[in-house]
Amino acid sequence: MTMEEVFAYVREDLEGVEQVLMDSVQSDVQLIAEVGKHIFQSGGKRMRPLLTILSSRICDYQGSAHLSMAAVLELIHTATLLHDDVVDHADLRRGSRSVNYLWDSETSVLVGDFLFTRAFCMMVDHRDMGILDLMSRTCRQLAEGELLELTKSGDPHIEEDNHLAIVRNKTAVLISAACRIGALLGERAEWEAYLADFGLNLGMAFQLIDDVLDYEAKEQVLGKTIGKDLQEGKVTIPMIRTLERCTMAEKDRMVEIIRARSQDSRHLQEILETIQKYDGLEYAHSKARYYVDKAKTALTPLPDGQDKSALLVVAEFVAIRTN
Amino acid sequence: MTMEEVFAYVREDLEGVEQVLMDSVQSDVQLIAEVGKHIFQSGGKRMRPLLTILSSRICDYQGSAHLSMAAVLELIHTATLLHDDVVDHADLRRGSRSVNYLWDSETSVLVGDFLFTRAFCMMVDHRDMGILDLMSRTCRQLAEGELLELTKSGDPHIEEDNHLAIVRNKTAVLISAACRIGALLGERAEWEAYLADFGLNLGMAFQLIDDVLDYEAKEQVLGKTIGKDLQEGKVTIPMIRTLERCTMAEKDRMVEIIRARSQDSRHLQEILETIQKYDGLEYAHSKARYYVDKAKTALTPLPDGQDKSALLVVAEFVAIRTN
Repeated sequence: MTMEEVFAYVREDLEGVEQVLMDSVQSDVQLIAEVGKHIFQSGGKRMRPLLTILSSRICDYQGSAHLSMAAVLELIHTATLLHDDVVDHADLRRGSRSVNYLWDSETSVLVGDFLFTRAFCMMVDHRDMGILDLMSRTCRQLAEGELLELTKSGDPHIEEDNHLAIVRNKTAVLISAACRIGALLGERAEWEAYLADFGLNLGMAFQLIDDVLDYEAKEQVLGKTIGKDLQEGKVTIPMIRTLERCTMAEKDRMVEIIRARSQDSRHLQEILETIQKYDGLEYAHSKARYYVDKAKTALTPLPDGQDKSALLVVAEFVAIRTN
Repeated sequence: MTMEEVFAYVREDLEGVEQVLMDSVQSDVQLIAEVGKHIFQSGGKRMRPLLTILSSRICDYQGSAHLSMAAVLELIHTATLLHDDVVDHADLRRGSRSVNYLWDSETSVLVGDFLFTRAFCMMVDHRDMGILDLMSRTCRQLAEGELLELTKSGDPHIEEDNHLAIVRNKTAVLISAACRIGALLGERAEWEAYLADFGLNLGMAFQLIDDVLDYEAKEQVLGKTIGKDLQEGKVTIPMIRTLERCTMAEKDRMVEIIRARSQDSRHLQEILETIQKYDGLEYAHSKARYYVDKAKTALTPLPDGQDKSALLVVAEFVAIRTN
């Protein structure tokens, strides 16, 4: 199975999710409808909905609530992106101009709130206390993760473990929830922990690759500005690894550039060269590979078949993706 | 009964709510604990918790969940204030420096999100679908109200009905929910509509008086900067009324000042004089009185006694409050 085949396999469901997303931003308040349309037509990988759909299938869920629950995951994710963009003063998002840029930060904050309340309504409408328990805890962790990241912003002395705790809270727990919901929908309590574990590790890998791509990707492919993390004071694994291994003089120089939140491409180039010298990107890749392998192993107890194959393909894609 | 006697009557419960609020901002993320402490020690009227407590009592609720539900109302209210402060670039809140000012707008957005997720967890923990239904709908309306207000920001041609729809969505529905929860907790379905109606009308009056006080109150009493609404482009009832009645020349001049979002105290003075000429503040007061009377009437079917007296005192206080 290729990633294209995975998407073909769930196409109908993904289209259903798109419909739920578009419906969710219908409102008498025209601004909501406009901004919502812009957001959901700008694309996005729909990684979380994809995982919810596949997890529901492997747990043999026969209903249609996986579409709205997949949309809930995407709504929450999108709400955090809108608030992130305000925090980060981002101009680009998913290759399109950010809401923050096209409208203003006020709109970005309040539409984020609106999307979150829509997710809240949809979760309540589904009337499953297990899902409400999972999602309320997950949302709390997301908020803590974002605030922990803000606290550590621009700190060149952050340690790998601290950084990984941020990655776990701000990204991995939501991807874990996306998978776990499948077990809750399919009432396969015995598989819940495996899918949760799969998602958590996959989420770790996903964010690590995201951080690598911030240094590597072509702007038009990734849809974000390159080196943006650095300008925002986000010190990620390639940098943390390099700071642990480089000379005192190199470290001082890097710390200086990090603290200045330089927008100068020569500074970015200088940082990149030092990171390459100490194999910082390879190190991050190898950590991502470690998490992907852990994710795949977590699925071992689940039955073989097309759904499991698809989940494994998604996991592999996360490790090798270039955007 | 005086307002002081009402507070004495529910003191123990209100202290319980304070404890829940302080507990809710305990977190391994130190920033959350610090900001949370600042917010909840800065005071606030605790109008919503007060109403939840009194409504629970009149509905003869015997448990202790009214404390956490009262805290949920205050958490949601506080989250919206934090996001409002970012939208409005406010420096003061409840007479203290705003989070926005003391920390930064990023912190204000993300701590707002955190408080909201805490409320979400507490609601889910209570496991009452009726309350979850009510609160999810209410939160959606709040978000819509905020966005509607943003859309109309700086529009001198907004009509009274449109403005009242904003007031209803951004303020009154939450105060209505605070009262309605009492009926849900006490399982008094037959009184739910009355308490909802009481709260909705009280909420309308509360916001109208808030808008009047923006023109009238002493800065140290109200804890906000005077004339702030005007600088933020918020056109409220005293102004809407005046714009409907003044001469063309006066209207042009006021529109000019509104559009300029002037910070000049002479401009504020000029606006105030025109509003006074056309009894704009008296008009807003009379509308507030209308809603307070409607609120009081809504309680008619409920049993007389100390709880009802207290609710009526709160209603009267809203009409005559000076801060």
